[in-house]
Amino acid sequence: GSVLVLNSGSSSLKYQLVNPVGGEAIAAGTVERIGEPSGIVTHTFAGNRTRRELEVPDHGEALRLALGMFDEIGPRLADAGIYAVGHRVVHGGAEFSGPVVVDDAIIDRIEALVPLAPLHNPANVQGIRVARELLGDVPHVAVFDTAFFQGLPPAAYTYAIDREVATEHGVRRYGFHGTSHQYVAGKVARVLGRRVQDLNTIVLHLGNGASASAVRGGVPVDTSMGLTPLEGLVMGTRSGDVDPGVLFHLARNAGLGVDELDTLLNKRSGVLGLSGVNDFRELRSLIDAGDEDAQLAFDVYIHRLRKYVGAYAALLGRVDVIAFTAGVGENDVDVRAAVCADLEGLGIAVDPERNAQRGGERIVSPDWAQTLVMVIPTMEELAIARQCVEAVDHLEPPRAVTAG
Amino acid sequence: GSVLVLNSGSSSLKYQLVNPVGGEAIAAGTVERIGEPSGIVTHTFAGNRTRRELEVPDHGEALRLALGMFDEIGPRLADAGIYAVGHRVVHGGAEFSGPVVVDDAIIDRIEALVPLAPLHNPANVQGIRVARELLGDVPHVAVFDTAFFQGLPPAAYTYAIDREVATEHGVRRYGFHGTSHQYVAGKVARVLGRRVQDLNTIVLHLGNGASASAVRGGVPVDTSMGLTPLEGLVMGTRSGDVDPGVLFHLARNAGLGVDELDTLLNKRSGVLGLSGVNDFRELRSLIDAGDEDAQLAFDVYIHRLRKYVGAYAALLGRVDVIAFTAGVGENDVDVRAAVCADLEGLGIAVDPERNAQRGGERIVSPDWAQTLVMVIPTMEELAIARQCVEAVDHLEPPRAVTAG
Ligand SMILES: Nc1ncnc2c1ncn2[C@@H]1O[C@H](COP(=O)(O)OP(=O)(O)O)[C@@H](O)[C@H]1O
Ligand SMILES: Nc1ncnc2c1ncn2[C@@H]1O[C@H](COP(=O)(O)OP(=O)(O)O)[C@@H](O)[C@H]1O
Repeated sequence: GSVLVLNSGSSSLKYQLVNPVGGEAIAAGTVERIGEPSGIVTHTFAGNRTRRELEVPDHGEALRLALGMFDEIGPRLADAGIYAVGHRVVHGGAEFSGPVVVDDAIIDRIEALVPLAPLHNPANVQGIRVARELLGDVPHVAVFDTAFFQGLPPAAYTYAIDREVATEHGVRRYGFHGTSHQYVAGKVARVLGRRVQDLNTIVLHLGNGASASAVRGGVPVDTSMGLTPLEGLVMGTRSGDVDPGVLFHLARNAGLGVDELDTLLNKRSGVLGLSGVNDFRELRSLIDAGDEDAQLAFDVYIHRLRKYVGAYAALLGRVDVIAFTAGVGENDVDVRAAVCADLEGLGIAVDPERNAQRGGERIVSPDWAQTLVMVIPTMEELAIARQCVEAVDHLEPPRAVTAG
Repeated sequence: GSVLVLNSGSSSLKYQLVNPVGGEAIAAGTVERIGEPSGIVTHTFAGNRTRRELEVPDHGEALRLALGMFDEIGPRLADAGIYAVGHRVVHGGAEFSGPVVVDDAIIDRIEALVPLAPLHNPANVQGIRVARELLGDVPHVAVFDTAFFQGLPPAAYTYAIDREVATEHGVRRYGFHGTSHQYVAGKVARVLGRRVQDLNTIVLHLGNGASASAVRGGVPVDTSMGLTPLEGLVMGTRSGDVDPGVLFHLARNAGLGVDELDTLLNKRSGVLGLSGVNDFRELRSLIDAGDEDAQLAFDVYIHRLRKYVGAYAALLGRVDVIAFTAGVGENDVDVRAAVCADLEGLGIAVDPERNAQRGGERIVSPDWAQTLVMVIPTMEELAIARQCVEAVDHLEPPRAVTAG
């Protein structure tokens, strides 16, 4: 069987039909610009990419279009034997520490978390509702971006703010990209033929959004994103860490309101805010052309990353592996080299030749280094598909028992 | 000669008459609750402490009272041979990277920085104005809390936010407690008989306010406080680092405005916000009595500190010394032990017996550890006094030249 993985954003729907055993994507596609006058649908199957432009009024229509692509271009879903539909949900609050099979009560609970993720959870809920209507005869599973980090210790997830306020408004570190961090930490162990329980790993998920985690024996001990995905590393368009006093200062001196500050830090900051571009390939071209702003953006990005590597090394005591993943982490040779430069004192180094090679999972540190530096391509859809299987497996035995 | 060091807060004036050569405080005092119905004046000289309660309407009267104490109780300022008056000024912006002899133009420039430190700089300016009136015949020197950190590299002082907004509103890391960090980093070298140029030091200034710095060869490479003294470590009443998204969340869900959020994070957070107390002696009593909130506050405080130690170790590459200073850093044995626990992998450890001993400058790490862990009592007034001498020395030669 296969699992259909859905990722519903505010104006987009991404889908992938995954074989959770072999791990390959059977087909994948996106519906973008939902609600705009002209939407875009792409569908890739058997090496062929189909692209359509047409109006997509809402998420219901988006999913209907996607299912139509399967019918028209393939593979036919009836033949694909869909075993479950997996939904990526951004915020699971303090409620969800693993995947859950969706029912009406679960939807209510995900909706109750909307204040914690006002941009993301509503779209996720909408996606689940529509999908349950159109694909009613298979189990739907919610997989939360925050779930893995429910394993954080209190010293890591507690902010040093007034406890009453924090408790009343759910203010704590939740962490995001959890599916990726968990997958990568597990994959590291499988690649090395070691038990995840025996490894201390720092995972650097560097995509458009970026986050770091420290994982001891499979259990997270800290992560850089917080109540929201704004905290931590410098990202494509997000600032990551800033003095909270910056917000007070800009509110008073630039007259910016909450929504404007939110947009400033989430959409107009990070690498983009410093250099004017947010794609690391463009940033590299600018740097090579002598652009000083681009160089500064790179330096600030690396400086922050190095601080997190050191911080997590101190939390872990011993670092067995640093694993780079996601768009920048998997592809940017210079970022990996700069993050690990001059860290021989901590047992960390990158071998230039190994680092320059392309490929799948691999080790890029020299043999003498105590810490293995690795590149591990993240496979969030596969990880979600596998978590779906797990959740549905949990579901089946009691069913069988009550039926028998 | 001696230097009179003044530290003007919004409702207080602290003063100390210092011998910049021998280093001892000849006399010291405070005027508190300025502007309130009943103020308090204390003056300590030759081992005797005098205390008065009376109304102190403004900073002018506060300084007049302080000068009166010198006349009445001693030492007589005429006999003390005051060489200069040193003023601690909180924010020197990007303008001041060292002490400056005050004239009217300097006062204007300090006033122009009020938007960066709306609570502190106005009081500092007021203190300078009053002192110049009452003590008109000696040079007045401004010593800035931010000055040392003007040596930070751009990758450390640049926030990853929109450059135009940042430039227009002076948003960058300035750092605070600079006089203390500079003094301690220098003192470490003198105590060890080494050159400051050859030492990589992490300074942990842990008082009511708390900050960390990484200093390479006498030059700062990063520090934890930022645009304001709110960022970084967990403090007595300040949160230190939080996801900026926390502010958006509380503005929207708790209906808090900018001033309320400012008060929440600066006055009702930190150790106080988590445990109900902000003095570490009380915190220890609560922990010993089994109070779980107090234990959590301690754990969060230590977790944050350990992250900074690791982060700065990565920036420095090699850490020769970790120096603890200020009220908590100099006195709290448990804090020092917990910060350095389980860091043998980084070459860091504390020897329990050495750590438990009291005294002045001392080493508390075991002989085998690569990194020396030290306790260095901070002497901000002495450091200010010495910077005054330096600034006035700079002043004299040109005077002599133009006069000759
Ligand atoms: N070959 C490459 N070299 C450097 N950076 C790359 C390369 N390919 C992709 N990237 C970076 O990866 C980013 C996207 O990463 P990705 O993990 O797909 O992001 P997300 O899933 O967070 O949207 C791009 O913005 C780009 O900066
Ligand atoms: N003996 C002690 N043990 C533990 N903590 C102490 C001790 N003495 C002072 N402190 C701590 O030091 C703090 C004050 O430090 P200090 O450097 O004087 O602060 P600041 O100058 O920032 O106001 C007190 O709040 C208390 O928590």
